[in-house]
Amino acid sequence: MSGSTFGELFCVTNFGESHGPAIGCVIDGCPPGLALSEADIQGDLDRRRPGTSRHVTQRNEPDAVEILSGGTPICLLIRNTDQRSKDYGNILDTFRPGHADYTYWRKYGLRDPRGGGRSSARLTAPMVAAGAVAKKWLLEKHGTTFLGWMSALGELEIPFDSAEHIPHNPFFAPNAAIVPALEAHMDALRKAGDSCGARIEVRARGMPVGLGEPLFDKLDADIAYAIGSGFATVQERGSEHGDELTPAGFKSNHAGGVLGGISTGQDLVVRIAIKPTSSIRLPKASIDRQGLPTVVETHGRHDPCVGIRATPIAEAMLALVVMDHALRHRAQNGDVVLAVPAVAARAP
Amino acid sequence: MSGSTFGELFCVTNFGESHGPAIGCVIDGCPPGLALSEADIQGDLDRRRPGTSRHVTQRNEPDAVEILSGGTPICLLIRNTDQRSKDYGNILDTFRPGHADYTYWRKYGLRDPRGGGRSSARLTAPMVAAGAVAKKWLLEKHGTTFLGWMSALGELEIPFDSAEHIPHNPFFAPNAAIVPALEAHMDALRKAGDSCGARIEVRARGMPVGLGEPLFDKLDADIAYAIGSGFATVQERGSEHGDELTPAGFKSNHAGGVLGGISTGQDLVVRIAIKPTSSIRLPKASIDRQGLPTVVETHGRHDPCVGIRATPIAEAMLALVVMDHALRHRAQNGDVVLAVPAVAARAP
Amino acid sequence: MSGSTFGELFCVTNFGESHGPAIGCVIDGCPPGLALSEADIQGDLDRRRPGTSRHVTQRNEPDAVEILSGGTPICLLIRNTDQRSKDYGNILDTFRPGHADYTYWRKYGLRDPRGGGRSSARLTAPMVAAGAVAKKWLLEKHGTTFLGWMSALGELEIPFDSAEHIPHNPFFAPNAAIVPALEAHMDALRKAGDSCGARIEVRARGMPVGLGEPLFDKLDADIAYAIGSGFATVQERGSEHGDELTPAGFKSNHAGGVLGGISTGQDLVVRIAIKPTSSIRLPKASIDRQGLPTVVETHGRHDPCVGIRATPIAEAMLALVVMDHALRHRAQNGDVVLAVPAVAARAP
Amino acid sequence: MSGSTFGELFCVTNFGESHGPAIGCVIDGCPPGLALSEADIQGDLDRRRPGTSRHVTQRNEPDAVEILSGGTPICLLIRNTDQRSKDYGNILDTFRPGHADYTYWRKYGLRDPRGGGRSSARLTAPMVAAGAVAKKWLLEKHGTTFLGWMSALGELEIPFDSAEHIPHNPFFAPNAAIVPALEAHMDALRKAGDSCGARIEVRARGMPVGLGEPLFDKLDADIAYAIGSGFATVQERGSEHGDELTPAGFKSNHAGGVLGGISTGQDLVVRIAIKPTSSIRLPKASIDRQGLPTVVETHGRHDPCVGIRATPIAEAMLALVVMDHALRHRAQNGDVVLAVPAVAARAP
Repeated sequence: MSGSTFGELFCVTNFGESHGPAIGCVIDGCPPGLALSEADIQGDLDRRRPGTSRHVTQRNEPDAVEILSGGTPICLLIRNTDQRSKDYGNILDTFRPGHADYTYWRKYGLRDPRGGGRSSARLTAPMVAAGAVAKKWLLEKHGTTFLGWMSALGELEIPFDSAEHIPHNPFFAPNAAIVPALEAHMDALRKAGDSCGARIEVRARGMPVGLGEPLFDKLDADIAYAIGSGFATVQERGSEHGDELTPAGFKSNHAGGVLGGISTGQDLVVRIAIKPTSSIRLPKASIDRQGLPTVVETHGRHDPCVGIRATPIAEAMLALVVMDHALRHRAQNGDVVLAVPAVAARAP
Repeated sequence: MSGSTFGELFCVTNFGESHGPAIGCVIDGCPPGLALSEADIQGDLDRRRPGTSRHVTQRNEPDAVEILSGGTPICLLIRNTDQRSKDYGNILDTFRPGHADYTYWRKYGLRDPRGGGRSSARLTAPMVAAGAVAKKWLLEKHGTTFLGWMSALGELEIPFDSAEHIPHNPFFAPNAAIVPALEAHMDALRKAGDSCGARIEVRARGMPVGLGEPLFDKLDADIAYAIGSGFATVQERGSEHGDELTPAGFKSNHAGGVLGGISTGQDLVVRIAIKPTSSIRLPKASIDRQGLPTVVETHGRHDPCVGIRATPIAEAMLALVVMDHALRHRAQNGDVVLAVPAVAARAP
Repeated sequence: MSGSTFGELFCVTNFGESHGPAIGCVIDGCPPGLALSEADIQGDLDRRRPGTSRHVTQRNEPDAVEILSGGTPICLLIRNTDQRSKDYGNILDTFRPGHADYTYWRKYGLRDPRGGGRSSARLTAPMVAAGAVAKKWLLEKHGTTFLGWMSALGELEIPFDSAEHIPHNPFFAPNAAIVPALEAHMDALRKAGDSCGARIEVRARGMPVGLGEPLFDKLDADIAYAIGSGFATVQERGSEHGDELTPAGFKSNHAGGVLGGISTGQDLVVRIAIKPTSSIRLPKASIDRQGLPTVVETHGRHDPCVGIRATPIAEAMLALVVMDHALRHRAQNGDVVLAVPAVAARAP
Repeated sequence: MSGSTFGELFCVTNFGESHGPAIGCVIDGCPPGLALSEADIQGDLDRRRPGTSRHVTQRNEPDAVEILSGGTPICLLIRNTDQRSKDYGNILDTFRPGHADYTYWRKYGLRDPRGGGRSSARLTAPMVAAGAVAKKWLLEKHGTTFLGWMSALGELEIPFDSAEHIPHNPFFAPNAAIVPALEAHMDALRKAGDSCGARIEVRARGMPVGLGEPLFDKLDADIAYAIGSGFATVQERGSEHGDELTPAGFKSNHAGGVLGGISTGQDLVVRIAIKPTSSIRLPKASIDRQGLPTVVETHGRHDPCVGIRATPIAEAMLALVVMDHALRHRAQNGDVVLAVPAVAARAP
C-alpha cells in the first residue's frame, strides 16, 4: 500500500487533496448495527474546522460531512469550498524550507506547491470524521471516552486546571487563566511572521484490557506511528518506573496504561509534540528547480501553530488505534476466560 | 495479523520464545541475487549477544545463526541453549510491577512468567539477524551505512567524541573517557538491585531520496513504530526549524533527514529513549492471581539496563524500515525521472 | 480488512451500495505521471452500463465518473441516479433462493433486500473504472492489451470468428452470425421469467514476463480469486499438457500464459463461468424471517444473464491483477538482469 | 508480500525449499489455549507423506514435525532428509516444458532446477501441518469436520460409495471396487513415462454460518485462490440453480454452501481439478539457456499424478480458509444477535 490506509481491521482509507474538489475517507470493517448519522460526526469536525478564531488559518471551510454509504464500507465525503490557489503563485518554482514540496518532487517527479498535495493538515479532517465513528462504537461497547487538551504552546506550559475549560477557548487549554497569555503569544508570533510548536495530551478512559500485541503492533508502537507520541523515559530507574499493584488496583500509572505493548485497563495517557509549521512569512534561503539560489516567503493562509487544531485530531487518531485493536483482540482472543476473576486494574 | 510480522514488502516474521527451543525469523521479499552466508549475519548478532560483559545479563547464548532456506523466503534459526527457568519459580503466581505478565494474563488467559513469553528482549535477536540482511543489500545497492551509539546512560550524558570508540567498550559509547564513569554507574545500580534507562542514537548515511509515504507510513512514523524514536520539538519556532537550501545543499538538518514523511537524502538521525528494565531485584508491592497482596523480587538473569545492548538492535530496526521503503518506493516510483538534474541534497 | 480492498500495491477500495446515493473507488499506489481524465475511464463504463439493450436490466444509470482526486490516491465517484426501491416491497420479509439476503442477515443481523447491499452487480462499476486506469498504465508501460468476449450463453456455444464483431452486438460475441440466436435465446428466457449462465473469455496480450509469486499469490491463483477462472484440466496427460519450447518460442500455450504461478510472456488466456442470476420472476419456495414457509417471485429490474455485461468487468479485473503484480514484481526484482539474452517467449 | 504468507488473521508463513535442509511454517494469530502437540499434526502429515505406495514419488521423507514454539506465533519445522539432487544434473541448462524453471529464471535471474525451488509439491507439507492446527480449533470450537476424497483419476471417474473406503487405499478413493482399475491406470502411466491429472473433492460439515465477505474475500473466491476450485455452472438456469428454503432447511445445495460469498451453514462442497505433473520421462522439445534447441527427459523422483497426494492438502487448505474467516467474522460481527431465532439452515 501507498500509505493512504490506516488500520488492519477497522480500515480507514483517506482520499483527496487540499486544493482538489473534495476530501474524505472509506471506513471498512465497522461492526454492523451502529446507528450513524452526519450529526454523530459533524461535532468533532467543527472542533477541528479552520477559521474559528484569528489564531488559525482563515481558509473558510464548513467541512460539512456527507455519508455516501453507510454499510460495508462507510464512505464519508467533505467537499472543499475555498481551495483558491493563487496565493501560491510566487512559490511555484522554489522549495519552502522545512516543507514537503522538495521531497515530493524528488519522490514523484511532480511539483504541486498548493497545500503540499497530500501533506496538508487538511487531510486530517477525514481522520477526525472516522475517529468520530470509532469513538461512538467504543463508547457504546466499552464505555471508553477520549479527552484531549493542549499542555504547552511553544515555550508556555499550560497547567491542567479543569477539563471544563477545554471547549471554551480556541486553544483547547484546560486552564482559563492562561488564555490571555496564549492569545498574546500567538498575536506576537503572527506579527513576526513566524510559527511555533505545541504539546497535546490525550487521555482514553474506560479502556478495554488486553489490547495490543506483544512484539510488533504493540499498542504504544501503533500510537507512536499514528500520532508521534513518546512514552519512554531515560532518566527514571526501574524502582521508580514500575507501577505497583494492590488488591485495589495499580498504585500509579507511570506506564501510561500500557505494559509490554498491551493495555492494562488504566487510563491511556499520550503526549504529542507538534513541530512548528514550516510555511512562514519570514524570508528563508532556498533554491529553485534549476538549483539556483533564491529567497522564499510563504503568504498562503497557514496556521501559525498547527497544534492549536491538533487536539481533536489526536483524540481521533487515538480512538482509531484503540478501535482497530479492540477488533483484532476479539478476533484472536474472543474466547478467553480468566480462571479467576480479573483483579482490579482500572485505578488510578 | 497478530504482530509477529514486520514490513510490507521486505517482510520479517519473527518466531520463538525466550525459554523455548529456538527463536528465528522468516524474511520474505528479499531481492534475488544477494550473496548471503551465516558470516554476513553473525557479526551483528555477536554485538547484541548476552554475556559479553558484567553489565548485561549473564545468560550464556552463542546466538549462532543457521540459514534454513536462502531463497524466497529466507529462514534464519537461532537455537536457545541456556533457557533454564528455575529462577522464575518464586514469581509463578505473582505479577511483576512494570512487566508484561499481568497484561499477558489478561489478554490470553495464560500465565508464563519465564521471560515474558514474547515480550522478552531475546526476541530482538532475529531482528538483528534480519537487519544484517537489509544492511547488506542497502550497502550494495545504495551505499547506505548505519551507525548507532549510546548518547546517555540514565542521567549521564555521553558526549560524542569519535565513532572509533564505539566498538571498543561494552556500552557502544562514542567516547572513551566516559567509560569508567559508565562502569561505575552500572556497578552501583547492580549493587542496588535497580535498573535504569538509556538514550541511543542511530544515523543512516547515504540515504536514498524519496523514501516514505506522505500521509500514513511516513518514514518517520514507521521509524517511531519500529524503534520508538521522537523527532518533533515543541519549543522551536518555524524560523529556526526549517532547513534552508542552497545550491550546495541543505544548510542544516533539523528535520533529521525527513520532510513531510519522505527522506531528503540527508543523514537520517534518530534518537531513542529506552525505559528502565522492569525486572529488578528490589522488592515491590504486587498482587497474586487471586488478587491478594504480595511482594515481588525478581532474581532471573536480567539486564540492569537493556539500553546497553540496544545499539545493534536500533541499527537493525532502522535498516529494516529503510529497506522496506526502498522496495515500496521503486514499486510505485521506479519510472520517475526528474526533468532537471536533482539539486544537491546530501549535505550536511 | 473486510473485503472492500483489492490488490497489494495497486490497491482499489470499493465503496457504495446499489441503492445508496453513490458508488466509487479509491485507487492507492498508482505510479505518478499518468495523465488521466474522465474520458480515459468513461469508455469502459459505457460498455458495462445497464439499459443499453433489452437483454439487460432497464435501470437507467448514466454511470458518469467524476475524478475527486487525481494523485495519491485517486478517488473516482459515480452517482446513483435511478435507485428506486419500491419494486422490492414484496420481498422485504422473505429470502430469495440463491440470493445473498439470507447470508447477509445471518452475518450482519441486518435485512436489506434492495439490491443485496454490497452483493449487487452494480458494485462492479467502480472496478471497471479502476481497471481502465490499470489498462492505460499497462498499455503505456508494457504495451499490454486486454480483450474479452462471450464464448457461451447458456447452452449456446459461440465460436470465435473475429474480434471485430465484439463491439457491434450487445453480447460481446465475436461472431455476427450467431447474434440472432442469442437474441432469441434471451427473449425466450425473459418471457419464461428465468435466467441463465454464460462463459466469458479474456486475453491479455503483450504480457510482461515474470509476474506472479511461486507459492501463494500465484498469478493464476490471484486471477481465480478475482474472476473465478479455472485453468487446470483433469483429463489431459503430462505429455500433452507441457508446452514445448523452441528457439522461436513456445510451440503451444496449454498453460494459458502461466507456469508455476508466474507469467511466461505468452498471451494470458482466462475462461470464466458465470452462474445464472438468482433474482428470477418464477415463483420459488422460501421462508420468511419468522421461519414460516412462503413463495417468492422477484420483480425488480434484474439482468436475466449477468454474463452479458460481464465482459468489460472481466477485462478490468484481469488488468487489476496484472497491474498489481507488475508493481510487486519490480519492487522485488527491479534489478534482475539475465546473464544471457532472454530466449523467445512471446509466441504463440 | 512475496507470496509466502497465507491468511489475514490466522497467518501461515511458509518457508524452505525442496532440496534445502528444512521446510516449515510460522502460524500467527492462533487463538490461545489450544492444546497442541506433535501428535495432533503428524497424522495428516503421514497421509500426505511421499513413499507410501508405488504410485507416488519414492523420495523417502519421514516428515516428522517439530514444534519450535507453541505460542504467539507457532513455528513448525520439518527437516528434509532425502534431498539428493544428483538426479537433476542432466537438466541443469535446459528448461522442462510445463515446468516453472523457465519462469523462475526470467523472474529472478536464477536457475535452480532441483525441485523447482519453491514450486515443489514438497512445500505443501507445512500447509498440511498448519491445516491440522486449524482443523483442531474448528472442531473444538464449531464442531466442523473436513473430509476429502478423489473423484476422478485422469479419465476414470470414481463413484462415491462410502467414506469408509477412503483411508484404506493409496488413492483416497471412496470406492473399494475401483481401486484395481486405478492401480492398473497408474502402472500403465508410469510404464509410459507419462503423467495425468485428477479431481479431488472436499467437504466441510458443521460449517459456521456467515463466514466470508460480500465483495472481495468472498469465501468461494478465497477457496478458489487457495485450492483452485470452481463453483459456477454455465448451462444451468436460475430456476434450477437457486436452492429453495423451507422451515426444515434448504431443499438442495447447488450453491455448495456459499451464497453471495458468505457461508450458509450447509456443507461446503469443493471440487478441485489437478493438472498433470509436468516432470515426465517422455522426451520433449525444449531450449537451453543460450536459446539453442534441445530435448528434455526428466528422471528425478516425481509423482506421476500429484493428485494422489492432494487429498490431505485440499482438506488443509480448506480448513485454513475457513479458520481465517472464522476469526475475521468474529472480529467484525462478534456482537451480532438475530432479532428472531435463526431459521434452519444446516440441511441438506
